Amino acid sequence: MTAPAAPSANDSLTALRDLTRQFAGERDWQQFHTPKNLAMALSVEVAELAEHFQWLKTGADDELDDAKRTAIRHEMADVLLYLVQLADKRGVDLYAAAVEKMALNAVKYPAAQVRGDARKYNEY
Amino acid sequence: MTAPAAPSANDSLTALRDLTRQFAGERDWQQFHTPKNLAMALSVEVAELAEHFQWLKTGADDELDDAKRTAIRHEMADVLLYLVQLADKRGVDLYAAAVEKMALNAVKYPAAQVRGDARKYNEY
Amino acid sequence: MTAPAAPSANDSLTALRDLTRQFAGERDWQQFHTPKNLAMALSVEVAELAEHFQWLKTGADDELDDAKRTAIRHEMADVLLYLVQLADKRGVDLYAAAVEKMALNAVKYPAAQVRGDARKYNEY
Amino acid sequence: MTAPAAPSANDSLTALRDLTRQFAGERDWQQFHTPKNLAMALSVEVAELAEHFQWLKTGADDELDDAKRTAIRHEMADVLLYLVQLADKRGVDLYAAAVEKMALNAVKYPAAQVRGDARKYNEY
Repeated sequence: MTAPAAPSANDSLTALRDLTRQFAGERDWQQFHTPKNLAMALSVEVAELAEHFQWLKTGADDELDDAKRTAIRHEMADVLLYLVQLADKRGVDLYAAAVEKMALNAVKYPAAQVRGDARKYNEY
Repeated sequence: MTAPAAPSANDSLTALRDLTRQFAGERDWQQFHTPKNLAMALSVEVAELAEHFQWLKTGADDELDDAKRTAIRHEMADVLLYLVQLADKRGVDLYAAAVEKMALNAVKYPAAQVRGDARKYNEY
Repeated sequence: MTAPAAPSANDSLTALRDLTRQFAGERDWQQFHTPKNLAMALSVEVAELAEHFQWLKTGADDELDDAKRTAIRHEMADVLLYLVQLADKRGVDLYAAAVEKMALNAVKYPAAQVRGDARKYNEY
Repeated sequence: MTAPAAPSANDSLTALRDLTRQFAGERDWQQFHTPKNLAMALSVEVAELAEHFQWLKTGADDELDDAKRTAIRHEMADVLLYLVQLADKRGVDLYAAAVEKMALNAVKYPAAQVRGDARKYNEY
């Protein structure tokens, strides 16, 4: 796997962190934003996202209509926004953590060994 | 709220999307990655993250040790990586969606009206 | 819908409530069992259950092996046990609540109107 | 731990299983009720339950009002109803599974060793 170039200073995750800080600050909501509460809120948002798919076969585009597509898009946004806030509270650099985790996953699941193997994948 | 500058081409979310595409491609795992399955995997990862906080008071730094901090960091990475893959499958620009959702939230929760108000916040 | 007969005194949900009270009491774990913490633990257990199904087509019996069947059975048990404990803390009679909710659902989804209708069902 | 007496034939979990069979049958909804979909629906309902607690300190009774109490009661009912349906699809006797799991937990967490010990409990 090629090492990704470091994101520039003007990065999307940094921009979202700044936006959420400003938003919560203006509302004095930081007091509610303990890591525990943010983790709980994150799991609620993920469930709201998953709800759109629960009775569908695969969630492919032709199973959705425009209202669903927009709702799914907004739920994904909510998930990212809570994740960014939790990372901010925990002092975690999300991008660095994700790159690090990908490297660990590459060792754990060697491509040559797990290719297209659902059995292996199920044990993931 | 000031409008955030557009992220550069060399953006972290774009880089992670490319990394996950390569990773899944090399393992022929795209076949398992329906939007529905990714949403489900995302909710499992969020629960693994939340699990670290479930018996803690708030999840503040002094309630954690180094092993916990690293585990939490990696679970946050997993959440982001599945979210990025789901967004890729659904053709969603996560950054644009998040900025759009923040603007909607700003209208829905006017700062002057909800400031520090737990009651209002609880109805969020 | 025929009204179900009231469960006898020697009921499974009552028996499980008593078992979990004894178990937590013997370990002095009641102090950790706030409704909020139990709700969080419940959602973690549900995710551990869902994890077994995330890459499967439907979770039908022939997609499972004995190890999976046992693991699923035990995760379902954990979900029930946390639910029973949360209900105990909140003073909720789970059986009465479920019968009441079924009656509300029967009004909300009249059989003649929603029969086999995935569209209606998706809005559920 | 004393062994609980077997539940009578007229048991609450059996009654709820019968009610949900009738309800889904009358609506021809069994076709949507794969184990995977039911597990997903279950996790959505659990999140709707958890949502009521996410910004509260502990979820103790004095932090709730009557509307919240009723909503929480109904969400617990939904969780139980989906769990009962999943158990029915998987052929799992929920009561027997829960009693079996309690026995395993008693071995895993000997009372004398874990009493009131948050550290041990956190590793749960």
